[in-house]
Amino acid sequence: MTLTQHAPAPRVTQPSSGDQAVLIVHGRDRTGIVAAISTVLGRHGANIVSLDQYSDNPQGGAFFQRTVFGRADLKAALPEIEADLRRELANGFELEYTLRDLSAPKRVAIFASKADHCLLDLLWRHRRGELPINISMVISNHADTAGEVRSFGIPFFHVPSSGPDKSAAEAQHLRLLTGNVDFIVLARYMQILSGDFIERVGVPIINIHHSFLPAFIGAGPYAKAKQRGVKLVGATAHYVTEDLDEGPIIEQDVVRVNHAHTVAELQRQGADVERAVLSRAVLWHAEDRVIRDGNHTIVFQ
Amino acid sequence: MTLTQHAPAPRVTQPSSGDQAVLIVHGRDRTGIVAAISTVLGRHGANIVSLDQYSDNPQGGAFFQRTVFGRADLKAALPEIEADLRRELANGFELEYTLRDLSAPKRVAIFASKADHCLLDLLWRHRRGELPINISMVISNHADTAGEVRSFGIPFFHVPSSGPDKSAAEAQHLRLLTGNVDFIVLARYMQILSGDFIERVGVPIINIHHSFLPAFIGAGPYAKAKQRGVKLVGATAHYVTEDLDEGPIIEQDVVRVNHAHTVAELQRQGADVERAVLSRAVLWHAEDRVIRDGNHTIVFQ
Amino acid sequence: MTLTQHAPAPRVTQPSSGDQAVLIVHGRDRTGIVAAISTVLGRHGANIVSLDQYSDNPQGGAFFQRTVFGRADLKAALPEIEADLRRELANGFELEYTLRDLSAPKRVAIFASKADHCLLDLLWRHRRGELPINISMVISNHADTAGEVRSFGIPFFHVPSSGPDKSAAEAQHLRLLTGNVDFIVLARYMQILSGDFIERVGVPIINIHHSFLPAFIGAGPYAKAKQRGVKLVGATAHYVTEDLDEGPIIEQDVVRVNHAHTVAELQRQGADVERAVLSRAVLWHAEDRVIRDGNHTIVFQ
Amino acid sequence: MTLTQHAPAPRVTQPSSGDQAVLIVHGRDRTGIVAAISTVLGRHGANIVSLDQYSDNPQGGAFFQRTVFGRADLKAALPEIEADLRRELANGFELEYTLRDLSAPKRVAIFASKADHCLLDLLWRHRRGELPINISMVISNHADTAGEVRSFGIPFFHVPSSGPDKSAAEAQHLRLLTGNVDFIVLARYMQILSGDFIERVGVPIINIHHSFLPAFIGAGPYAKAKQRGVKLVGATAHYVTEDLDEGPIIEQDVVRVNHAHTVAELQRQGADVERAVLSRAVLWHAEDRVIRDGNHTIVFQ
Repeated sequence: MTLTQHAPAPRVTQPSSGDQAVLIVHGRDRTGIVAAISTVLGRHGANIVSLDQYSDNPQGGAFFQRTVFGRADLKAALPEIEADLRRELANGFELEYTLRDLSAPKRVAIFASKADHCLLDLLWRHRRGELPINISMVISNHADTAGEVRSFGIPFFHVPSSGPDKSAAEAQHLRLLTGNVDFIVLARYMQILSGDFIERVGVPIINIHHSFLPAFIGAGPYAKAKQRGVKLVGATAHYVTEDLDEGPIIEQDVVRVNHAHTVAELQRQGADVERAVLSRAVLWHAEDRVIRDGNHTIVFQ
Repeated sequence: MTLTQHAPAPRVTQPSSGDQAVLIVHGRDRTGIVAAISTVLGRHGANIVSLDQYSDNPQGGAFFQRTVFGRADLKAALPEIEADLRRELANGFELEYTLRDLSAPKRVAIFASKADHCLLDLLWRHRRGELPINISMVISNHADTAGEVRSFGIPFFHVPSSGPDKSAAEAQHLRLLTGNVDFIVLARYMQILSGDFIERVGVPIINIHHSFLPAFIGAGPYAKAKQRGVKLVGATAHYVTEDLDEGPIIEQDVVRVNHAHTVAELQRQGADVERAVLSRAVLWHAEDRVIRDGNHTIVFQ
Repeated sequence: MTLTQHAPAPRVTQPSSGDQAVLIVHGRDRTGIVAAISTVLGRHGANIVSLDQYSDNPQGGAFFQRTVFGRADLKAALPEIEADLRRELANGFELEYTLRDLSAPKRVAIFASKADHCLLDLLWRHRRGELPINISMVISNHADTAGEVRSFGIPFFHVPSSGPDKSAAEAQHLRLLTGNVDFIVLARYMQILSGDFIERVGVPIINIHHSFLPAFIGAGPYAKAKQRGVKLVGATAHYVTEDLDEGPIIEQDVVRVNHAHTVAELQRQGADVERAVLSRAVLWHAEDRVIRDGNHTIVFQ
Repeated sequence: MTLTQHAPAPRVTQPSSGDQAVLIVHGRDRTGIVAAISTVLGRHGANIVSLDQYSDNPQGGAFFQRTVFGRADLKAALPEIEADLRRELANGFELEYTLRDLSAPKRVAIFASKADHCLLDLLWRHRRGELPINISMVISNHADTAGEVRSFGIPFFHVPSSGPDKSAAEAQHLRLLTGNVDFIVLARYMQILSGDFIERVGVPIINIHHSFLPAFIGAGPYAKAKQRGVKLVGATAHYVTEDLDEGPIIEQDVVRVNHAHTVAELQRQGADVERAVLSRAVLWHAEDRVIRDGNHTIVFQ
């Protein structure tokens, strides 16, 4: 019997996106937008790999387009493509756009508290190469998960946050985050972020919370759900706005439960849905598949 | 080419339940209940076909049991079995029970308004032999569906109900229903039933309504759901209590929707879930699979 | 109590597609196709309502695009748009395309045998305005459903087909169908179509059949599935080719079953999935959302 | 900012099952079995916590019952309860039974190869307290996962197994396993077990494999599924018998895929279903919820 102890084999974290970029365009719908964009791309020898387009009202409603395109030497050509797009789209269209090289994954900070199911699910999926992100750091108001997080090779910062005044903690958060991350994931982070922090940090923040039909407001939602005999337990991932738990929804899902589930089992089932829903929301955001529009989202899956 | 016009072939509406009965027992849990019940059944030569049992807390919590049993000449033997059960269960147990011959389907009245998707789904499933019920009548506050309902051979009664005073309409309802039905299904009946009616009619009432994560209160819920960008649209079937839409939940389900669904399409998807959820709730109630316990239900599927 | 008998209120069968058309393009991928198409549409003042595009390999793989566009006076403009597209796409691209005015629903013939669950589901959904099709006729090798079909106002033709020689029946089929239908749906039609018929009828044919994990070959699949204890029962809708049940898959789904389901209940559950899957396949085909490519399909949902 | 490195907090691995035991009875159905069992339990002051019963045919078919019961000082009382049950059930019934103290989790060996998704999912769920098992060891024919497994505190044994002759490897397996495990889980173990090994190891073996509708036989099933355009990708967990992949099914599930999924993405989706399905099968087996009966299973969920 051979007994050897190897380190885990390195895994390819990123699906090679080769020489590809993603272009998101949204604004007021008008005849000719798709033609204008695709003509610019064609002019630069870029081939369209996938194109999703949606208008909420063809008569002057809102227009949304996600285009993935590729060409050789993309990195060198991107500035010219962008300049050309800017010129073209400024030409009478009321549109905003973002253009991103897919070979550079987005950088993310994960916020967590004591419950670790969402945090660990993201770390595991990332290590398995399922999430095209760079996890820059984990920030927690509890030190419990420090060892676990660092065993994944990811920096862990313990920033305690107790009492009503969050300003000291949020100042630390801003020092850690500024310039270092492209978005933030609240993986069951049990502290409320101030409107001031949300504005100053300046990057999208994704949150996950439990959801029921009907909703149960306030403390002990699982106990209330048990008492009412709900048959579905769910979770919602959304962008964070100042309105707590009211931001644009990215993804939702439910699992079926029954009368025999105890409150603890409902919570475990809920935790399973939470991590599944959050990981999908993070994946789609990382791939620029989610476009915010007022208080809802367009998700090109 | 032969062109003939036949009436539809008669379909077997009832799965032959042969000589079977269903016994529901619930009350305070105590050692020995299962033994007491099964001993009585064994004494009468009845064989247990299926038995579902649940205690919400083995230390003196609530006890629920659904037992289907059979024997030859069941109808003749039922009175003695019932007397024997009554004696046995009175013997120190705090239990209620109901005993029902499965060869006699429950009689139901369906209430509807203009929207016919839930009503027709029940009529179609009944005609296909999928629901072990007798539909005694359809009552509607609109006459629109009269022809359709009667083409199924089912009596239709138009009972207009406008204005705040429902007492005249409810008096007509009671005259039609009293003695004729074992339960009532509100198949998108858009009138509120008074507490007085609910009490006087004296049979269980099942309602269906749309459900979202999160809930949207008040008028135009689909428009609000669209605006918020929900990814799931659902429905809840529940027993009617005086608390509108707050009674014990029997069944729930959802379907996945996305940003491209218009409000009208969300409503159609919602209608599809409503009819599926309502038909399951009706089936389970008809088969005595649902036990009410305070504000929730035990469903032995 | 007012007792009146009204005919059911007329329902809008077609969602008003206004002045819209759908364009399907597929062929070899090349830089510039999207630009060429959208430029032509823009030139004619047509606004793109939705655009789905997919390439199975950006380096010279297969290209697929579904575009819905609209403009005032579409009908008058379509011939010119088509001529312009033909010129443009002939210009060095290897592409096929179809262009269809969405205000003219596709005409369909439904083939059925004795089992009526799929047939009736299509008739009901059509009457409820859920399927943008014109049902030209129902053809069956049994007369059982004639009355039911005709009560929907749809012509029913009984074409008996027994014995190994199907040529007489198929000749009748061709006389009924030629020039009258745009596609055919086999709604549990229990006769095998000859390769000769499939070729001569010249329109797409959609079939539905049960599916299991794993598959059970031959007669009595539900009995075999019961014996093996499968936990999922499913259905597959596919285009018919000469290879029985091996054509390109359009849609599939499953339902969860368990050990307590009898063979009859498995069949009923299977029937429920069959009708749901078939109706989705018919809807998507009717809306030109399905593109065949060799032995598989691209479905732009 | 406090930066501390803690080991992960210990988690409660077992939900306290207190003084509870599970009794499985199956054999030929006859009047009086439920009464006999519950009378014995009542005689010993044991309270029934949950009872599931199923007969595949009330007229002399097969009978299955799972009963969880509790009492104070259960451990001391179990031998007498068992003796009493043995006497009672020997008394004219043709039944087999197993009785197990729920406070002693089943011991399991996990077999794995290079793919680690199922292996790690089981280790993670176990550490999170979601699986009431003791993982005695992991055995692999590759050394790659040794470090990872041992970081969970679980013994890892590398037993190479190449070439057609598995007898040396299987002899090592038997030395490791004999007396040490109650069941075995093949978590994507890519070696075929000999019939001789299955017989000699003498404990149940659970396997997981991919499943499609329809099935694709032989090598490269995902490539074939892609080519055929399947819309569902699934997995089946089953007990291992000498008939490869043909043993009694414990659990199955599927996920929805579409034309845009590459073969690699289909495999990743398939891996996600595999680990979900396997973990459910392991949980249900660990809790004695699965009863084998010929080539199928009764699962009391």
